[in-house]
Amino acid sequence: MSDNQERTEINTLGEFGLIDHLTSPIVPHNPSTLVGVGDDAGVIDNGEFVSLVSTDMLVEGIHFDLMYTPLKHLGYKAVTTNLSDIYAMNGIPKQITFSMALSNRFSVEALEQLYAGIHAACDRYKVDLIGGDTTSSTSGLVISVTAIGQGEKEKLTYRNGAKVGDLICLTGDYGAAYLGLQLLEREKQIYLSNPDIQPDLEGQSYPVGRQLKPEARKDIIEEFAKNKLVPTSMIDVSDGISSELHHLCKASNVGAFLEESGVPIHPEVEMLSIQFNLDPITCALSGGEDYELLFTIDPNDIEKVKYTPGIYIAGEIVDAKDGIKLHTKGGNIHELPSQGWTHFKKEA
Amino acid sequence: MSDNQERTEINTLGEFGLIDHLTSPIVPHNPSTLVGVGDDAGVIDNGEFVSLVSTDMLVEGIHFDLMYTPLKHLGYKAVTTNLSDIYAMNGIPKQITFSMALSNRFSVEALEQLYAGIHAACDRYKVDLIGGDTTSSTSGLVISVTAIGQGEKEKLTYRNGAKVGDLICLTGDYGAAYLGLQLLEREKQIYLSNPDIQPDLEGQSYPVGRQLKPEARKDIIEEFAKNKLVPTSMIDVSDGISSELHHLCKASNVGAFLEESGVPIHPEVEMLSIQFNLDPITCALSGGEDYELLFTIDPNDIEKVKYTPGIYIAGEIVDAKDGIKLHTKGGNIHELPSQGWTHFKKEA
Repeated sequence: MSDNQERTEINTLGEFGLIDHLTSPIVPHNPSTLVGVGDDAGVIDNGEFVSLVSTDMLVEGIHFDLMYTPLKHLGYKAVTTNLSDIYAMNGIPKQITFSMALSNRFSVEALEQLYAGIHAACDRYKVDLIGGDTTSSTSGLVISVTAIGQGEKEKLTYRNGAKVGDLICLTGDYGAAYLGLQLLEREKQIYLSNPDIQPDLEGQSYPVGRQLKPEARKDIIEEFAKNKLVPTSMIDVSDGISSELHHLCKASNVGAFLEESGVPIHPEVEMLSIQFNLDPITCALSGGEDYELLFTIDPNDIEKVKYTPGIYIAGEIVDAKDGIKLHTKGGNIHELPSQGWTHFKKEA
Repeated sequence: MSDNQERTEINTLGEFGLIDHLTSPIVPHNPSTLVGVGDDAGVIDNGEFVSLVSTDMLVEGIHFDLMYTPLKHLGYKAVTTNLSDIYAMNGIPKQITFSMALSNRFSVEALEQLYAGIHAACDRYKVDLIGGDTTSSTSGLVISVTAIGQGEKEKLTYRNGAKVGDLICLTGDYGAAYLGLQLLEREKQIYLSNPDIQPDLEGQSYPVGRQLKPEARKDIIEEFAKNKLVPTSMIDVSDGISSELHHLCKASNVGAFLEESGVPIHPEVEMLSIQFNLDPITCALSGGEDYELLFTIDPNDIEKVKYTPGIYIAGEIVDAKDGIKLHTKGGNIHELPSQGWTHFKKEA
């Protein structure tokens, strides 16, 4: 029963534009609602502590391909990618809910595998499964995970806290999950064209592992607590450094100057990107699914991160009018595009 | 990549059997996790108050049919049915997250309608939308809502608190949402066979409204607080009285004696069930989607509910060995079947 009204296509707004459009008029009803839509997690005031709530939906054929994704890894990844959002607020995840819609092509044994992955992630990150919903699907598998965490109000790291002069820090390395996906897709195509050929993933365990079984940076949050460091802002890197840095700068109303030489890339990623005829830095900036942390610190706090393994200083927050720029190894200064992979390739 | 292992079909376990099977080995990691899978909501200890978390997934073609479900009503219902789970714990819902997977057949205007319903429910129940996820779907619309509420530890109403001698109470009336669905399905079939015939829902606004735009019993929870009543157990009636009473009795390790004369049925439902050649009490016991509350009280608290409009005393909790029985208006005593509509029809 559609009306004969005007029709605006969703893709004219994009995911974030759409969410802004649909949720912009919200005025909270409850004083306990500290932060609503727009950060890594919603924030609820409980007095002494705050609760952090983050949720993701994963759709077969969009976010995962069961041809090369073992169900156990899928369950694990569905949990860890949500926990990553709680850590990105400088909080500790404590509970999750797990819901799924599935068709009868899944057996009980298949679901046991999926849940084995969920339980493994819960054990590793010390979170508890406290609910969910299981229902039928007319076609593929759909998963929805909600993570609930705990934080201290004055130690939360929002996207909007970056100040001019702050240092931009990155954890881990970038581009591996994206290249892992390219590898798996390539082997899938080879297999589909000739099922006798076995997948050749020899020596590629790092990028494939980063794609199929990502971890959340619990260790970094624990390091912050130990060093009494509270970043001025933080975001988790799920859509590539470029996109996340743009989100953070927009929320904080600042610009950024990012050093290409400061963006960590794993040696296997360097080699593999050449195989795929891709620029490693492009994979690192726009690849996505790294689930690392991008954060900013007051320059006076530099001693607290300088000698921490796995944390890299990669640039500086600048005035909004100076834009968001990349200083390449070759000495050039570019605009850093805000879009994901597709758009970046077009503009590059 | 499926293994050549044994295959157990999901339907051999049923939804609740499946959840039990997949989640049974859980030992909580966090002392804040008070209740996990198995009640209307998970319970998290925050010190002075507890947080309650409940989640549902709704799938197009399974839970709703967009041919007769306006998107605004769908958004409203997706929220209120989740809030119902929080009220069923004697808690107050405060926040929700809303996630959806959708194909590009939906326009921005269509999503504005969906969100108008979400916002209307949020306004009516004074809850705040604090997050969500929007993603693509390969086919139909999938919605996942998580509600977060607040409660007082000593006033929570679990499913497992019913004691022998407690009175069984029901709010509202039953069977209307089920019959509303039958009406809408009938009109859909007529329309599909001849699109010139306009739907005839004249005088059927009550059952259709109960199906398309159900409310959650906020008023009853407020009444409990005013009368200082804490039920000994409670569950919300989403799958029909029979099924919910079985859940409650199983969790409490008791039996029940339900009076047919105590089950409230709306006059329009009485009339409509005759049109559909159905027994009104069967619709009331097994219909589902009423989103009323079934609760038990200590007999000493009878004065606190006796004169409350919309609360009906419908039976008594008995010893587990006496089973779960229905005392019909005709004076017979039956086993009350535990299954939903389909199984009930087979056994009746």
